[in-house]
Amino acid sequence: MTKQKISEGDYILLYLNQRKTYMVKVETGKTFHTHKGFIKFDDLIGKEYGSAVQSSLGIEFVVLKPLLRDFIMKSARQTQITYPKDIALIVMFSGIGPGSRVVEAGTGTGALTTALAYYVKPEGKVYSYEIREEFSKTAEKNLKRAGLIDFVELKNKDVTAGIDENDADAVILDLATPWLVIPHAYNALKPCGTLVSFSPTIDQVVKTVEALRENCFVDIETVECLMRGMQTERGKTRPQTLMTGHTGYITFARKAFRGSDTLAKE
Amino acid sequence: MTKQKISEGDYILLYLNQRKTYMVKVETGKTFHTHKGFIKFDDLIGKEYGSAVQSSLGIEFVVLKPLLRDFIMKSARQTQITYPKDIALIVMFSGIGPGSRVVEAGTGTGALTTALAYYVKPEGKVYSYEIREEFSKTAEKNLKRAGLIDFVELKNKDVTAGIDENDADAVILDLATPWLVIPHAYNALKPCGTLVSFSPTIDQVVKTVEALRENCFVDIETVECLMRGMQTERGKTRPQTLMTGHTGYITFARKAFRGSDTLAKE
Amino acid sequence: MTKQKISEGDYILLYLNQRKTYMVKVETGKTFHTHKGFIKFDDLIGKEYGSAVQSSLGIEFVVLKPLLRDFIMKSARQTQITYPKDIALIVMFSGIGPGSRVVEAGTGTGALTTALAYYVKPEGKVYSYEIREEFSKTAEKNLKRAGLIDFVELKNKDVTAGIDENDADAVILDLATPWLVIPHAYNALKPCGTLVSFSPTIDQVVKTVEALRENCFVDIETVECLMRGMQTERGKTRPQTLMTGHTGYITFARKAFRGSDTLAKE
Amino acid sequence: MTKQKISEGDYILLYLNQRKTYMVKVETGKTFHTHKGFIKFDDLIGKEYGSAVQSSLGIEFVVLKPLLRDFIMKSARQTQITYPKDIALIVMFSGIGPGSRVVEAGTGTGALTTALAYYVKPEGKVYSYEIREEFSKTAEKNLKRAGLIDFVELKNKDVTAGIDENDADAVILDLATPWLVIPHAYNALKPCGTLVSFSPTIDQVVKTVEALRENCFVDIETVECLMRGMQTERGKTRPQTLMTGHTGYITFARKAFRGSDTLAKE
Repeated sequence: MTKQKISEGDYILLYLNQRKTYMVKVETGKTFHTHKGFIKFDDLIGKEYGSAVQSSLGIEFVVLKPLLRDFIMKSARQTQITYPKDIALIVMFSGIGPGSRVVEAGTGTGALTTALAYYVKPEGKVYSYEIREEFSKTAEKNLKRAGLIDFVELKNKDVTAGIDENDADAVILDLATPWLVIPHAYNALKPCGTLVSFSPTIDQVVKTVEALRENCFVDIETVECLMRGMQTERGKTRPQTLMTGHTGYITFARKAFRGSDTLAKE
Repeated sequence: MTKQKISEGDYILLYLNQRKTYMVKVETGKTFHTHKGFIKFDDLIGKEYGSAVQSSLGIEFVVLKPLLRDFIMKSARQTQITYPKDIALIVMFSGIGPGSRVVEAGTGTGALTTALAYYVKPEGKVYSYEIREEFSKTAEKNLKRAGLIDFVELKNKDVTAGIDENDADAVILDLATPWLVIPHAYNALKPCGTLVSFSPTIDQVVKTVEALRENCFVDIETVECLMRGMQTERGKTRPQTLMTGHTGYITFARKAFRGSDTLAKE
Repeated sequence: MTKQKISEGDYILLYLNQRKTYMVKVETGKTFHTHKGFIKFDDLIGKEYGSAVQSSLGIEFVVLKPLLRDFIMKSARQTQITYPKDIALIVMFSGIGPGSRVVEAGTGTGALTTALAYYVKPEGKVYSYEIREEFSKTAEKNLKRAGLIDFVELKNKDVTAGIDENDADAVILDLATPWLVIPHAYNALKPCGTLVSFSPTIDQVVKTVEALRENCFVDIETVECLMRGMQTERGKTRPQTLMTGHTGYITFARKAFRGSDTLAKE
Repeated sequence: MTKQKISEGDYILLYLNQRKTYMVKVETGKTFHTHKGFIKFDDLIGKEYGSAVQSSLGIEFVVLKPLLRDFIMKSARQTQITYPKDIALIVMFSGIGPGSRVVEAGTGTGALTTALAYYVKPEGKVYSYEIREEFSKTAEKNLKRAGLIDFVELKNKDVTAGIDENDADAVILDLATPWLVIPHAYNALKPCGTLVSFSPTIDQVVKTVEALRENCFVDIETVECLMRGMQTERGKTRPQTLMTGHTGYITFARKAFRGSDTLAKE
């Protein structure tokens, strides 16, 4: 059964309200300071997750066990991270699951990598390319915090120069020039493997889709996803005023068999 | 490594184009008829997935290996199935992954069940409640087709009367009266476990959120997700004209520790 | 005061329900047939608008006076008509109102022309260009039906060859190649006049915006508008399942004064 | 022809860029200060609208003539103003135009009132109810600035107590309890007149629609409108990241003839 007691070394999510949460590491003898007072970790250790705790100012926090989504949202924001809603669709569309072998590029600060590792464990593996070393390091830190580093091989290499792996179940692209990687992705994928690309601009999508068509991919589809929060309260229920209008487009495709001269153009 | 050759007994996805695909079972000696001509399964067996094949009318199909999303979309539509976009968010928000123990209600025709089983395997389990026997049977058929029946316990029971399991990592509700199940869900969940509810109407959301607040859940959030396809072609790129305007609202919450008299109201 | 009694020659809107309405002309001695029975016009003449009437099968219809929106929606659909939501934004963004002089291209079947004429009357005028004669004729018929033909000059000419008018308050473009008309639009507009262009594809938008920047327009803005219907019923309220995902992008700009060498690029 | 030269007493729109504009009144001998330097009005008077002008710091502004939309957006924000996109739909759906007699409640700071007055002029009239005197005063100021006060009768009265007018073409409701005004609106409307109500919450919509059904309105329809801006630049085109997720729902209906016992329920 999953461990339920708060222990030394755990990462916990201190929940104040829907707008304010803190992810912190529990360390014996230490204190965590917020604008609502401080909390002594020693008071938490041994309690059950889900317990309420009062700060020195008498404000109540709930100690939650971080979920995948929390690790994603709390990833250091050195780069524009992919949103949970997009990560959810990328994972679903790619068809990956426990045991999958996945190539990802670029790693960025590891938000998407974290999700990929989470779903392919314990038998699968994520091979994640990133050319900028400082990002790889941040990603490593984030993956360690989420306890997922063992399922990832971070590769500080230029993916546009080639992919080392082959027979991959999926290739996931989240970089500025995905179209340059499409031929390498074709070679890295097992037959019928999937490719998913995430791009903020329409021009990136057009170039990527063209490269996919030229490289014998089929079932090519591009979508965007808008998520809107609701304020729910009897008599006052309404969609929220603030909304993210755009993160990026998700393009999906599957590798077909090259050599078929007759393969119909999409 | 994943099996790559088309074999007797496999479910395959015959891909004609973005709008027309068929999921069929490969059976030696048999023939599959479409409005674009027929295909002999004997011609497919032994070929690699991703291969192109011509019908008797010379029309090309590509033989794809069905992904989770295909199994979901091809589930028999006796009931209004949850959409892949929603399933993707439900899975992500619930925090489930390989090894999770999940309670689901109702099973319906098993679209969401299929996804849950896919992500909790090989060590996890889905306990899925459904009061209508004919749905349970359809779900069983769909889960067998997807090769996931071993990770699901289908329970032909009324979930509003109670949940047998406890220490569940997540409870997923997709039924007409989720608010009636909230107290049972609280008991079935491990401390800090997650609850996700999917409902088409706003009234269902309001009642569910009220029940969650009354039952010591925190971090309550409701969202809706709109997905729009893009037609991608250089010089003619545009969003698609047709779009699903609404499927349902997704409500998320986490179980906090009961007994804290001071637990602040959301 | 507005005429309230149903009279010979009036166009009326027979309202069966939210999904089914008929726009017909009242003609003495004649009968209108629907799948819900027939209605004799003689039974309507002299009644007040808003009255209910029963068909020969005892089904009730309400006789409504058509509004601008009805005339737009009932325009013959030879071409893809602009939607009321877009027309509403085009009118608002263009800043036109009673008395405005407006150039429009192309006329199409006159849906947008009808709206422009409606808002510039009684003192204003719409000069509407259309190269395809059959469209001009349909537009003429639609404008006559709506009683607005006196406020429109239909011009069966190629607008990409030039615009005859000058000192226009606004130029409204709804044609395949708006960028070719931008220089002519600049000349036709009064100083500070507005230009609004409606285009389905992103590529059209990019070319149009580039032409606007090159031609000394400022305050350039492109938007898209999504409208979603609600099913409203206590206990069952929800957004509608079906929705139009895309009609087109609306680009807005204002003419600045040419000759300023220093005019900053947008 | 419309006056084109900048004159003493004009309200002008000083345009710096898409994100920063100033609406100011031209006053001889005075100076306008911005964070980009000051501008002397004497340098503007006599120039054509659309001209560029340099501030004391050498930054260029374009002098634009304010449009209806500018007057709406620059209305003093004492209350949450209705957005131009919603105002555009309200005007279109209501069917009002030059000559219409319109009842509005509440006035608020006059944003919607300004639009209504703009479209009903020169022969029409807007009767606008507002119970809070300070709002009526702000609205009066805004209407004067837009040059539209002559087409509006501001009434500092409680509209839930009754409407003085009758034979109105349209009643427009933008207040907290629209359902309380529906019976009065029915009496104030001419036969077949239109009612449009704008409300942020779903509960307001449900109550309003119920009141409309009970009061013999037909053709009842509720919509919401989402507007998203585009960043248009060759090679970088994409929807904007920031977006308003919700303003309110627009409900539309038409008065049918009371006394018909058989009038079918919607």
